[in-house]
Amino acid sequence: AILAAIEAALGEGPLSGRRIVVTSGPTHEPIDPVRYIANRSSGAQGAALAHALAALGAHVVFVTGPAAVPPPEGVEVRRVETAREMLAAVEAALPADAAVFTAAVADWRVEGAAQEKIKKVPGGDLPQLTFRENPDILAHVAALGPQRPRLVVGFAAETQDVVANATAKRDRKGCDWIVANDVSPGTGIMGGPENAVTLVTEDGAESWPRMPKAEVAERLAARIAETLA
Amino acid sequence: AILAAIEAALGEGPLSGRRIVVTSGPTHEPIDPVRYIANRSSGAQGAALAHALAALGAHVVFVTGPAAVPPPEGVEVRRVETAREMLAAVEAALPADAAVFTAAVADWRVEGAAQEKIKKVPGGDLPQLTFRENPDILAHVAALGPQRPRLVVGFAAETQDVVANATAKRDRKGCDWIVANDVSPGTGIMGGPENAVTLVTEDGAESWPRMPKAEVAERLAARIAETLA
Repeated sequence: AILAAIEAALGEGPLSGRRIVVTSGPTHEPIDPVRYIANRSSGAQGAALAHALAALGAHVVFVTGPAAVPPPEGVEVRRVETAREMLAAVEAALPADAAVFTAAVADWRVEGAAQEKIKKVPGGDLPQLTFRENPDILAHVAALGPQRPRLVVGFAAETQDVVANATAKRDRKGCDWIVANDVSPGTGIMGGPENAVTLVTEDGAESWPRMPKAEVAERLAARIAETLA
Repeated sequence: AILAAIEAALGEGPLSGRRIVVTSGPTHEPIDPVRYIANRSSGAQGAALAHALAALGAHVVFVTGPAAVPPPEGVEVRRVETAREMLAAVEAALPADAAVFTAAVADWRVEGAAQEKIKKVPGGDLPQLTFRENPDILAHVAALGPQRPRLVVGFAAETQDVVANATAKRDRKGCDWIVANDVSPGTGIMGGPENAVTLVTEDGAESWPRMPKAEVAERLAARIAETLA
């Protein structure tokens, strides 16, 4: 680790000269000025991965939603709130050698979010929220032409049929890899210190044993370095 | 402040022997295992108030949702997530001399939250969320018989007509005081270090100048101490 840090500082890691975009955290989609829809992503896995990539010498652009875990040192931080802001920040960060989408982006936003706080009328009408599909940042970037990073990696949070769902997601999104994890309540993974991931590539699915998120990050960063070498 | 701390430690503050319930933070209402509806409460004002009450010698039961700001030292912490859990924790904490409801409780929850993550079908149906009204913790406690705390204080986050809305809220809820603040975007109050509050009591509305949340807390704690004396 010390050697890696020294190498990174000297710009001599296996990823030196590489520019990598990492998205992380949740997005928040406003309902009105005080309410929003969120998700349970802590940003821990994204922050750990950005740290591991930077330690291998990469220039990391870290596009993060409002996460509980702070961004690591040594990365270029771009803060966003909504999915649409995240897409814009990712596009602005291209071109890049790789893009890794660890963020748990909201699939839907509330159409026509209210400008004033929605008042409760006791016993009265309940709010009617109309949803719209958010941009699919992973699929969008995977489908880019000359601007497409050489390696596009998506994350998938699944609660059932992890391998089948992740394999289907890889095909559907047009990305190179999917890193899938099982976020069922009871695994303690979402928001917890450990992760158990399945890496789906063109060669198939590879399940890694449960390990700390920092180790998942190091292993994944090493694989990314091999692939870009 | 040092004198107050010493007095509190010796159990000699003006609130020594008083039990006060303070709710704080947002609540999170699940949509499915990974998504939820939240609100922008940081828990800063509630934590500051709990601290100020404890410094005056009160035994504070601090019922907190998932807040960004950690609970203060020297209070009894009860962590909850949803509005229904918060109500149960408050009821369990009674009887008390006073109850101060700073939490930004979700007015609605999602009926029949999904047990599995709702999958996005690209271009497919958008989710239909059905809402149900959450229990009104403030009104419920204000309407209790012998279990009603002598002083019941609600908070109101308004974006317009602050005094009129807060006065109407006080009548409707049956509480003794409403502490109202203007959380319009642009004031920087929600999530920020300062607050500008209007205190509505049976004697009318009293607007305090904008000041740090810690000062609002001290001033309010002193008023509570006077009232319970």
